[in-house]
Amino acid sequence: MIQNLKRRLLGEKLPTDKLSEEKFNVFWGLPLLASDAISSVAYAVDEILWVLVPAIGLTSYFWSPKIALAIIILLLVLTISYRQIVSAYPNGGGAYIVAKENLKIKYGLIVGASLSVDYILTVAVSISAGTAAVTSAIPALFPHRISIALFFIALMTIGNLRGVSESSKFFSIPTYAFLITILSLVIVGSIKSIGNGVMATPILSDSPVTFGTRAVSLFLLLRAFSSGCAAVTGVEAICDAVPNFKEPAVKNAKLAYVLLTIAVIITFGGITYLATVFHPVPNSQQTVIAQLAASIFGKGIMFYIIQGTTTVILAMAANTAFAGFPILLSIIARDGYVPRQFALRGHRLGFSNGILLLAIAAGTLIIVFQGDTHLLIPLYAIGVFTSFTLAQAGICLKWFRTKPKGWVYKAFINGLGTLITFITVIVIAITKFLSGAWVVLVIIPIIVLSMLKIRDHYSRIAKRLDIPNDRIERLKLSSKPTPYVIIPIQSLNVMVVKTLRYAKSLSNEVEVFNVETYEGEADKLRKKWAKLKTDVPLVIKQSAYRDIVGSLTEYIESNEHASRHGDFITVLLPQFVVAKPWEMALHNNTSLFIARALLNYRNIVVSLVPFQIEEKSELYKDIDLEIEEG
Amino acid sequence: MIQNLKRRLLGEKLPTDKLSEEKFNVFWGLPLLASDAISSVAYAVDEILWVLVPAIGLTSYFWSPKIALAIIILLLVLTISYRQIVSAYPNGGGAYIVAKENLKIKYGLIVGASLSVDYILTVAVSISAGTAAVTSAIPALFPHRISIALFFIALMTIGNLRGVSESSKFFSIPTYAFLITILSLVIVGSIKSIGNGVMATPILSDSPVTFGTRAVSLFLLLRAFSSGCAAVTGVEAICDAVPNFKEPAVKNAKLAYVLLTIAVIITFGGITYLATVFHPVPNSQQTVIAQLAASIFGKGIMFYIIQGTTTVILAMAANTAFAGFPILLSIIARDGYVPRQFALRGHRLGFSNGILLLAIAAGTLIIVFQGDTHLLIPLYAIGVFTSFTLAQAGICLKWFRTKPKGWVYKAFINGLGTLITFITVIVIAITKFLSGAWVVLVIIPIIVLSMLKIRDHYSRIAKRLDIPNDRIERLKLSSKPTPYVIIPIQSLNVMVVKTLRYAKSLSNEVEVFNVETYEGEADKLRKKWAKLKTDVPLVIKQSAYRDIVGSLTEYIESNEHASRHGDFITVLLPQFVVAKPWEMALHNNTSLFIARALLNYRNIVVSLVPFQIEEKSELYKDIDLEIEEG
Repeated sequence: MIQNLKRRLLGEKLPTDKLSEEKFNVFWGLPLLASDAISSVAYAVDEILWVLVPAIGLTSYFWSPKIALAIIILLLVLTISYRQIVSAYPNGGGAYIVAKENLKIKYGLIVGASLSVDYILTVAVSISAGTAAVTSAIPALFPHRISIALFFIALMTIGNLRGVSESSKFFSIPTYAFLITILSLVIVGSIKSIGNGVMATPILSDSPVTFGTRAVSLFLLLRAFSSGCAAVTGVEAICDAVPNFKEPAVKNAKLAYVLLTIAVIITFGGITYLATVFHPVPNSQQTVIAQLAASIFGKGIMFYIIQGTTTVILAMAANTAFAGFPILLSIIARDGYVPRQFALRGHRLGFSNGILLLAIAAGTLIIVFQGDTHLLIPLYAIGVFTSFTLAQAGICLKWFRTKPKGWVYKAFINGLGTLITFITVIVIAITKFLSGAWVVLVIIPIIVLSMLKIRDHYSRIAKRLDIPNDRIERLKLSSKPTPYVIIPIQSLNVMVVKTLRYAKSLSNEVEVFNVETYEGEADKLRKKWAKLKTDVPLVIKQSAYRDIVGSLTEYIESNEHASRHGDFITVLLPQFVVAKPWEMALHNNTSLFIARALLNYRNIVVSLVPFQIEEKSELYKDIDLEIEEG
Repeated sequence: MIQNLKRRLLGEKLPTDKLSEEKFNVFWGLPLLASDAISSVAYAVDEILWVLVPAIGLTSYFWSPKIALAIIILLLVLTISYRQIVSAYPNGGGAYIVAKENLKIKYGLIVGASLSVDYILTVAVSISAGTAAVTSAIPALFPHRISIALFFIALMTIGNLRGVSESSKFFSIPTYAFLITILSLVIVGSIKSIGNGVMATPILSDSPVTFGTRAVSLFLLLRAFSSGCAAVTGVEAICDAVPNFKEPAVKNAKLAYVLLTIAVIITFGGITYLATVFHPVPNSQQTVIAQLAASIFGKGIMFYIIQGTTTVILAMAANTAFAGFPILLSIIARDGYVPRQFALRGHRLGFSNGILLLAIAAGTLIIVFQGDTHLLIPLYAIGVFTSFTLAQAGICLKWFRTKPKGWVYKAFINGLGTLITFITVIVIAITKFLSGAWVVLVIIPIIVLSMLKIRDHYSRIAKRLDIPNDRIERLKLSSKPTPYVIIPIQSLNVMVVKTLRYAKSLSNEVEVFNVETYEGEADKLRKKWAKLKTDVPLVIKQSAYRDIVGSLTEYIESNEHASRHGDFITVLLPQFVVAKPWEMALHNNTSLFIARALLNYRNIVVSLVPFQIEEKSELYKDIDLEIEEG
């Protein structure tokens, strides 16, 4: 039944050879890879104003464009720097591989941990912001925002488990739709602002946000800058996916970087400009874009179109994390730093475990933070900028080592990128420390240490299991003497008889073992056993503590028969098998408990001898036949 | 570690022979068995007023004593009727056994289901009421009432898993303390009322409860009666525990019934009387007893003593359910109508599974009903009265069948009891149907049907496993030919070599089986295998769907070697064993998956061949030695 549901939900299982990737050109490829970066504009301006308005009130609208400019400069440096990484890693790779190959492995792991945390936050933040776009349009849905967000995540999880084709052109449309609607908002807004002049009062006069009257401080501006850095996240996506472009791939990827940067500058810059004119007030009920759209277009059709495209592009951005995170985990898993299961392809060839981990982690964050984008932002960006820093530092070192043509210029560009992103990490860590960044600063080292511990475990096991080639040929495989077999039983029944017959086919040394837990049981069993007229001895032990496993292992250890057979002792457990799972719950399942417990004992082979309860006739016939023959 | 925690929390494991019971006399035994019935007074008066006050306002205090009188008459009939059951069942037994033996088994199951539901409600109601006594005394704790209630349940669960000695005299003290404090409240209250005359206005003028002005209707009075019936629950406890009394047990138990009835009449009657004088108003913040205590004694030491003893006796009442429910379940389990696990004694000889089920079910109810006694009451009592009815009907039939001396009188008494309790069931079902009784009326039939289904399952299996005595002697146990062995492997390593050696000790027909899930793996394995120079063939199959179990079973089914061996095919699964549980999570545990899947296939024995990763030296030495010899 569960299998059936799985098939319905996820589609038929796919064979391994269906694994292939479509290549795309710049026009269709850009929107797929850029949705994360471009969609950030849907909350980045809100976040800058959230820091400023409650502190310095109307003065915020003077400072916010300056902060946006600083962020755009940061973006330009990053773009130039990343274009060089594209040339250096034409096969893609991403920050994890760049850091691992050029720096020490531990820096690679820091990047892996940072990116993992950020992928999870990308989903949580994008889905929260997407839900905010929905509830800004339809305020009645606000109380249900967490359910809506979790529903989005569930949809995305199922979609990705089914295997959403990453290169489907269908997914390019929302990014262009968003760009066009934001562009029209900026153009119409700018024209209107010329007509009306700058507004003196904010859009929302009944806002729950208080207007601060504090003085402007450097710390405050840096905090606003840190919040706005969310706009730059997602820039690394193109660099990770170079081989997915049509040839010439490197050239196309570099062109895509230029176009991405232009798109972010226009949208982010445009919204920031409109904010200085229309004075939207950040709050958790209405996004800045929704406030601007309502003022500029009125609450008509355009308002709802803008909210709709915003929601869709944010969902797309979350979906890029669903595409990226499982692949990142699978790469790290192949290196042995996270559990192997993350490198296994599932039912439909996706890395199912990674997809599920992402969904659960992001869902938990959304529940804990009540689906509030603004509360999640302080945790965001620090991971991305850590990986930016380490990737660029790695490339920079690469130039120093390999010294290719023009390496001094290249090293300067990437060195500058390293420096600027490193400073940004420090700024975010300090200004956002108390409001949440500390969580990330605690979690990343924990993840890195766990990764090292996991790798250590795998190495130890691999070493333990490995047989060096020169030894293989000298291994002795000669057969051992007949094994010693014990069958623990509770009573004498058809199942036990079948097991006994099997035991006799394995060995001449078979013993049946019973633990008497309540008085009188043993005598009944002994009488019945005598009737069987077999040479197999019945051993009965008392246990005051009703402890079957303990009595059995004690017997095996004390038994001279057993210890004589140096190698393995075989314990045969009769196990009946019922058709329906609920029926299993009606039995003590002693055999399974014994099996699990015995696995921890050295050199005991645990064999489950199944006995199907259903399909009576055939099995009974079997026993009956034996009676006639005997 | 978990074992260690369990030992700390629950104490050392106890041997079976520690199982014994202390007998008690009437003075010490009564309070133990009566706490459930007597404690009901802590909420019964509240419940009557809850029905009346919002409907008919001050007129309530005129009608409530009449309703209380009806309930006391009901109690008297029950007491006389139950004294006769004591004589008929001197070995105890309770309603389940009485109904099962004298009526059809399905009535026994109805009683079993009703009592189970009511035990769970006893815990939920008593703990909620006990928590209400605490929060009435310390209103600041009111928002934490659910946590407090769950904490009480957790304490009781641990206590009962440890095995609280049911006969400990320590537990008799709270019942007497409660009786004494309630008695002093009634006496002082009565004296004061003579001084002051009847109050015209209710105690709580700022009460959230509105005062109704509707006319008195029969339906309303019957609803109030139904609510008040909670006062009578717990009366069956003495009858179930007759053999726990010192000799003459029957006489002592009958005496206990008289004393119990007197105690309930005095407390319940007394509180009802005080309510007519002091006009307490039912509400969920302050219990009636708390309101009376505050008016009569002021908020001094006596107020807190009364709240304290109330809390403790309510906890005691919940504890009687913890003693009774697991025993009831174990009796039904021995008859095969509930899962066998409920008949197993745990670690400390208690029926641990029953205790845990009770705790989880009652805890869930408290969370769902927000710890509000008043909301739980409509579900309560209906089960108790169903079991009263059926137990008395059973006894009544017994008199008709056996016709002992004076049977006409006896049958009349129990017949009257049956009739009155049956009418009460109908009244409760009708008047409380919409406010919750329907839940119980739906759940009890579902439980009964499940019980029948479970019993059917057990019968089917028993029949299937049974070997008639005349057949045992004719069974043929002759050994079969050497078994056919398959070892599924993923690579050639030390673990596989060990398994291979074991396989050769079992059989001459051994095959190693590999599924190639990614291209190129098979060639590597083949080359390594060739170096081993063994006659064991390596079978490699492709699987486009990465399905190891499917390929294996397909191979077994298609394989002529396998099918030739009519009986069992042996699958040996190399399984490495790591020391720490978290390490297991790092592996695919393919062997365990294969083992579980294969169990459902007919005639495949699944053997787990363990390989301990730790304690390197000893196992390695083993392999090395073999190399030197070979």
